[in-house]
Amino acid sequence: MKIHKQKIKIQSTTQVEFIDITNQVEDVVSASGVREGQVLVYCPHTTASIVVNHNEPMLVQDFMTILYRLAPVSDRYSHDLFELNRQTKSDGRSNGHSHCKAILLGGVSEILPIEKGKIILTERQNIFIAEMDGARTRDVVIQVMGL
Amino acid sequence: MKIHKQKIKIQSTTQVEFIDITNQVEDVVSASGVREGQVLVYCPHTTASIVVNHNEPMLVQDFMTILYRLAPVSDRYSHDLFELNRQTKSDGRSNGHSHCKAILLGGVSEILPIEKGKIILTERQNIFIAEMDGARTRDVVIQVMGL
Amino acid sequence: MKIHKQKIKIQSTTQVEFIDITNQVEDVVSASGVREGQVLVYCPHTTASIVVNHNEPMLVQDFMTILYRLAPVSDRYSHDLFELNRQTKSDGRSNGHSHCKAILLGGVSEILPIEKGKIILTERQNIFIAEMDGARTRDVVIQVMGL
Repeated sequence: MKIHKQKIKIQSTTQVEFIDITNQVEDVVSASGVREGQVLVYCPHTTASIVVNHNEPMLVQDFMTILYRLAPVSDRYSHDLFELNRQTKSDGRSNGHSHCKAILLGGVSEILPIEKGKIILTERQNIFIAEMDGARTRDVVIQVMGL
Repeated sequence: MKIHKQKIKIQSTTQVEFIDITNQVEDVVSASGVREGQVLVYCPHTTASIVVNHNEPMLVQDFMTILYRLAPVSDRYSHDLFELNRQTKSDGRSNGHSHCKAILLGGVSEILPIEKGKIILTERQNIFIAEMDGARTRDVVIQVMGL
Repeated sequence: MKIHKQKIKIQSTTQVEFIDITNQVEDVVSASGVREGQVLVYCPHTTASIVVNHNEPMLVQDFMTILYRLAPVSDRYSHDLFELNRQTKSDGRSNGHSHCKAILLGGVSEILPIEKGKIILTERQNIFIAEMDGARTRDVVIQVMGL
């Protein structure tokens, strides 16, 4: 069995942003030499998620709209008091809403099957890191396991 | 290590539908001969998700109700303008709401552990493909890895 | 390839509760001897989820608040009629809202990469079982696969 792992850096440029990393994930799968197996796409952060959906700019607007509505920036979040406490190693962002958006998106990882050396992805499926508290530099871990 | 993969076709018959595929997934696990490992259940689509929960018809109604409330069909979705553009390879469905429901359900895959040749599932756990934009023919990829 | 699995019991003490199991998961990874691979954290239940986020008590309050708002206990859930039916093997809890909260949290499992014998987790990432219908005794299955 082969295990191949690579970390990539992603720079987000705005607060909420869906960044398409499909090509980078496909490149790691190709480099792994795995023909049959799985790829794990993982982001080691608490205000970002991995999402697989269609990279259509107006749809991405819809995702942002629904996330703003379900976890509005304008609500009060207790966490923001924690972040504003200068005693803690906080970066001072009032990002309670960002953590809430991240948990609604359902998680820090997605796992996709590989067949004949390629990820099984249909035409309209793209892999995103969904940034909920940018701009930041984000890590994405791509780990391929298989034969 | 063994890797065993099978694709099944699921026909949904209405717009929003939770289709129980537990038996099919269990059959693939049995056929794999894997005694200890994992099964990945994956749907290569952007308006459907894999969900593990209780197959109780009234509960499934509750899931539909909450999804209708959180991502109402009656809202405006920018993506619907994309879908209505005849230039694109669209099927003309106004399905922005379906994509939003799918991302709230948290993803295109679930991964479950296998012990002594069986998926670890308790009595009230069922595996569903959650259709958010039927009726359609859907693919589900079931991939077993382990010893 | 090694596969190492351990089941742990978690006792929740209140209805909605985020219980930090990071240490327990790390212990299983250490015991496995796997240096490079993945750990699956899985809860075989329908009213609990696995969530990875920051264990900051005020943030956890925010998670509870948003879940209460999106799937209020005070709404009507058809499933509660099922639960109240004495004919069924029900425990009589009106927990339709708990199932709905669980599906919004996006799933029964999370999968995390292991590098040099350690889970790739940044400082503010913690692994929780998110209890949505306590108090109960819950099982968590921790399965490590890799080299």
